[in-house]
Amino acid sequence: MPTPPISRFPVPALANLPEDVRARILAVQEKSGFVPNIFLALARRPDEFRAFFAYHDALMERDGGLTKAEREMIVVATSAANECQYCVVAHGAILRIRARDPLLADQVAINYRKADHEPHQRAMLDFALKVALDSHEIQDADFPPLRALGFSDEDIWDIGAIAALFALSNRMANLINMRPNDEFYLLGRAPKK
Amino acid sequence: MPTPPISRFPVPALANLPEDVRARILAVQEKSGFVPNIFLALARRPDEFRAFFAYHDALMERDGGLTKAEREMIVVATSAANECQYCVVAHGAILRIRARDPLLADQVAINYRKADHEPHQRAMLDFALKVALDSHEIQDADFPPLRALGFSDEDIWDIGAIAALFALSNRMANLINMRPNDEFYLLGRAPKK
Amino acid sequence: MPTPPISRFPVPALANLPEDVRARILAVQEKSGFVPNIFLALARRPDEFRAFFAYHDALMERDGGLTKAEREMIVVATSAANECQYCVVAHGAILRIRARDPLLADQVAINYRKADHEPHQRAMLDFALKVALDSHEIQDADFPPLRALGFSDEDIWDIGAIAALFALSNRMANLINMRPNDEFYLLGRAPKK
Amino acid sequence: MPTPPISRFPVPALANLPEDVRARILAVQEKSGFVPNIFLALARRPDEFRAFFAYHDALMERDGGLTKAEREMIVVATSAANECQYCVVAHGAILRIRARDPLLADQVAINYRKADHEPHQRAMLDFALKVALDSHEIQDADFPPLRALGFSDEDIWDIGAIAALFALSNRMANLINMRPNDEFYLLGRAPKK
Amino acid sequence: MPTPPISRFPVPALANLPEDVRARILAVQEKSGFVPNIFLALARRPDEFRAFFAYHDALMERDGGLTKAEREMIVVATSAANECQYCVVAHGAILRIRARDPLLADQVAINYRKADHEPHQRAMLDFALKVALDSHEIQDADFPPLRALGFSDEDIWDIGAIAALFALSNRMANLINMRPNDEFYLLGRAPKK
Amino acid sequence: MPTPPISRFPVPALANLPEDVRARILAVQEKSGFVPNIFLALARRPDEFRAFFAYHDALMERDGGLTKAEREMIVVATSAANECQYCVVAHGAILRIRARDPLLADQVAINYRKADHEPHQRAMLDFALKVALDSHEIQDADFPPLRALGFSDEDIWDIGAIAALFALSNRMANLINMRPNDEFYLLGRAPKK
Repeated sequence: MPTPPISRFPVPALANLPEDVRARILAVQEKSGFVPNIFLALARRPDEFRAFFAYHDALMERDGGLTKAEREMIVVATSAANECQYCVVAHGAILRIRARDPLLADQVAINYRKADHEPHQRAMLDFALKVALDSHEIQDADFPPLRALGFSDEDIWDIGAIAALFALSNRMANLINMRPNDEFYLLGRAPKK
Repeated sequence: MPTPPISRFPVPALANLPEDVRARILAVQEKSGFVPNIFLALARRPDEFRAFFAYHDALMERDGGLTKAEREMIVVATSAANECQYCVVAHGAILRIRARDPLLADQVAINYRKADHEPHQRAMLDFALKVALDSHEIQDADFPPLRALGFSDEDIWDIGAIAALFALSNRMANLINMRPNDEFYLLGRAPKK
Repeated sequence: MPTPPISRFPVPALANLPEDVRARILAVQEKSGFVPNIFLALARRPDEFRAFFAYHDALMERDGGLTKAEREMIVVATSAANECQYCVVAHGAILRIRARDPLLADQVAINYRKADHEPHQRAMLDFALKVALDSHEIQDADFPPLRALGFSDEDIWDIGAIAALFALSNRMANLINMRPNDEFYLLGRAPKK
Repeated sequence: MPTPPISRFPVPALANLPEDVRARILAVQEKSGFVPNIFLALARRPDEFRAFFAYHDALMERDGGLTKAEREMIVVATSAANECQYCVVAHGAILRIRARDPLLADQVAINYRKADHEPHQRAMLDFALKVALDSHEIQDADFPPLRALGFSDEDIWDIGAIAALFALSNRMANLINMRPNDEFYLLGRAPKK
Repeated sequence: MPTPPISRFPVPALANLPEDVRARILAVQEKSGFVPNIFLALARRPDEFRAFFAYHDALMERDGGLTKAEREMIVVATSAANECQYCVVAHGAILRIRARDPLLADQVAINYRKADHEPHQRAMLDFALKVALDSHEIQDADFPPLRALGFSDEDIWDIGAIAALFALSNRMANLINMRPNDEFYLLGRAPKK
Repeated sequence: MPTPPISRFPVPALANLPEDVRARILAVQEKSGFVPNIFLALARRPDEFRAFFAYHDALMERDGGLTKAEREMIVVATSAANECQYCVVAHGAILRIRARDPLLADQVAINYRKADHEPHQRAMLDFALKVALDSHEIQDADFPPLRALGFSDEDIWDIGAIAALFALSNRMANLINMRPNDEFYLLGRAPKK
């Protein structure tokens, strides 16, 4: 079987992209050794590309109470609930690397309740899933238990906002049938020493 | 009963905002006569504010096959499915104005299948709801019927991307319990002449 | 677009109706200034017309612990859950008038949890929604918290019975595709003084 | 275990009931040999009692295209979907008697798709369940297939209205935890000859 | 209407079955007076037949804290949730016999929450339904309340394993459209003395 | 974090097991290089252990139209729908090996509709999921399309029976919180040559 295309929509040639978009793509290729397909698939609409990655960086690269691995746990758990092939595979790889744990990503993707996480991480994921699936039921009473586990209000915003951003991202990936790069599947799978 | 706050999170003073954020807020106030609460509620995180409105403008102000009223129909229908108070009330007002129709917004919000729309608009909303609620089931077979009704592939991207963006927006509004401005409720309700 | 019909089924001429049915219709016209479409749409079956309005009046005009506005809140919240165009629009108008509040009806219709209501009204609506959507799970334990908020057992019957009656009403309106009168959309929208 | 009460709410003494309500109860006792509990449980509110049974008789005793057994099939199938103990047991008994079939009621209650029914009855029950569970999705396209199977528009109204009435009835029975009379369980179970 | 076949798949002649399978079938016929259709429908695959009944006997005939009637209650409640015609009818009959109660099986099948059971039986059924419908949400916190009601850990395994076995059985019966024997409907319906 | 236990229930020592159970366990260890935890977790109840693996072998080792890889695809897809950590991880590994494809298992687990499969395999999985989640809706009309894709009736039985067996297996694994062996995560991940 030939490899299927990376998107239902046409993918532009690098040479035809605006300079800033091309620069961002070349930078990620330099750093990762390959270009994650989301950069190519979204580049056909440069304004949306810029807005998406600006939003992404604002939440995923932010300093704050949540570790980078915890941010990726939120992405993987909510993307699995939305059955987003691209996000679970790509961010599963990033989670393995950031958590230095080869098992955690698959555990979170299949049933986050049973992952090898700390109690506060379980509460974090419960809340992220509520934002992802039942945000209309969020109420004041959801906040004190999170604060009692050490989450600041800024952390709670981060949890909710990451779940909200990937609500968008999962839907875009499903809309365009975005295919994860083969490289992601193997990244970070070497066992813990 | 005193008016409840517009957000669960603190709202910054205009004077403390970065210049570009403040300028955007003043511009909308100038144009609308009031500041829609989403501008104030998101301003506390300027990077996310900028990314959100850049994304919003890229999709909602875009030239293309969908009319501005149709874009608002997508927002209202999907936001109603997510029970987002702010988005249904605020974009309901915008829809009334852009469609020059005082009934359409409420019809779409309560049961979009029964709104006074054209057949191609019904198909547009069915697809938007699929993106909003069941994006994992989108398949190639969903596209030809939309094309047969006159939607280009760029239009279909717009439908899906607007539904995806408001998946984010609805969840943020529910996370922070964003309150719609009282002004929205009455806008555009004068009967058609 | 010409105005669509008010029902999928034929609507009888006033002149052909039994005297009591016609009298009821003329009385509501006298009082409201127009004939709400439900009177015309149901009149083709006089026995069902009589039974429906007898049931309606027994519950909605009843003296008791619930205010008339609260009874309408139950109608709007449960009818929104059933996506009943007619009932949300028509009873939304009545709610605005009875509560002397131009915002409450839309708030209740979109997400009743976030309406500007009192705590006992929130509990009332939670119970009404349980009757509307999950009545098989009602249990003895549901009653003491309602009593603790000041509801008598007769009030609880009223809450449940109104939700039950509009379970019927919503399904009839959806069955016949009943259209709300244009007049309802604007009623009671003048801002509070 | 002592027999539990027939309702969560008090049941009035026959002697204290209005004359017409008492007469109706005595008549059913005369005819059936016992008083079905719904008569006693609803009698405490005579106006609602009268409206309910007027509605019931208008639909269940009506001449028309549907047989009386078919009307009961609709009741049993939709009441099973609502997990209404009283309605499934009581109307299951009536269905056995009216259809002269000792098996049909249980079949319809457990999985109506597998009952020993005719194809047009299967379509009738599919539509009744749509009214009971998803009435907001009813559309014009639902009607021609029913007409093609021989149902008149009056028959379709009957199907939908019976499903709607028992949407009310099931919720009332669940609200008050109405208990079916022991007599119902055995009625009509003698095998077909 | 001629009696429909007992399975969508061919049913083998007794004479063609392996000796142990035929012996088992003759034994049940000897004991019950008829051959429950599941024995005939599964016999076409002797290895699966043997595995199924070995599993069944290991759980349903086991000594332990649960009574045989309680084991059947679990079967009826979970099979009703899966709308399995065969299992509800056949095990409903066995439940009536084992519990010496002509009403309990129908009560459990329609809405197990309202059956005439003891409080510990209600908790048993709640847990069985969680295993049947939401096993991914089972957590350590589910166990102490069951232990407090007197269930040993072996009993809890039994509850869960019976629900799991009939998850299989219900799906097989639905796959092959297995028909319950007419005899089951009347068994055990004589009133309690 | 110390490795959590492999089951909520005690795990017996090999030395205390019946000879046949121990022999089976030693054989799998010999073949695989480790003992999959399901053998240890179920061994405490030898009769259920024997019945489970007899059923498993009858379906998974059977000759027939389905390849062994296809049988594993059914297991992974339905176990993912049930969020069964053990079955998705363990059978995902077996699927990678049997299909000689390092990507297929994760694709099937996250969203089986988007896996790199043949059209007949997509139909196979659609039917398996219907058995797993909505078996009460299976009808005669489901069979001809499968036959048209080349599936024999024995193949269809296999698809359904495997989905049914893992309905049991998933629930048992969730009941006892069965942990997949670490070894499974890396098996079969070497890229295709």
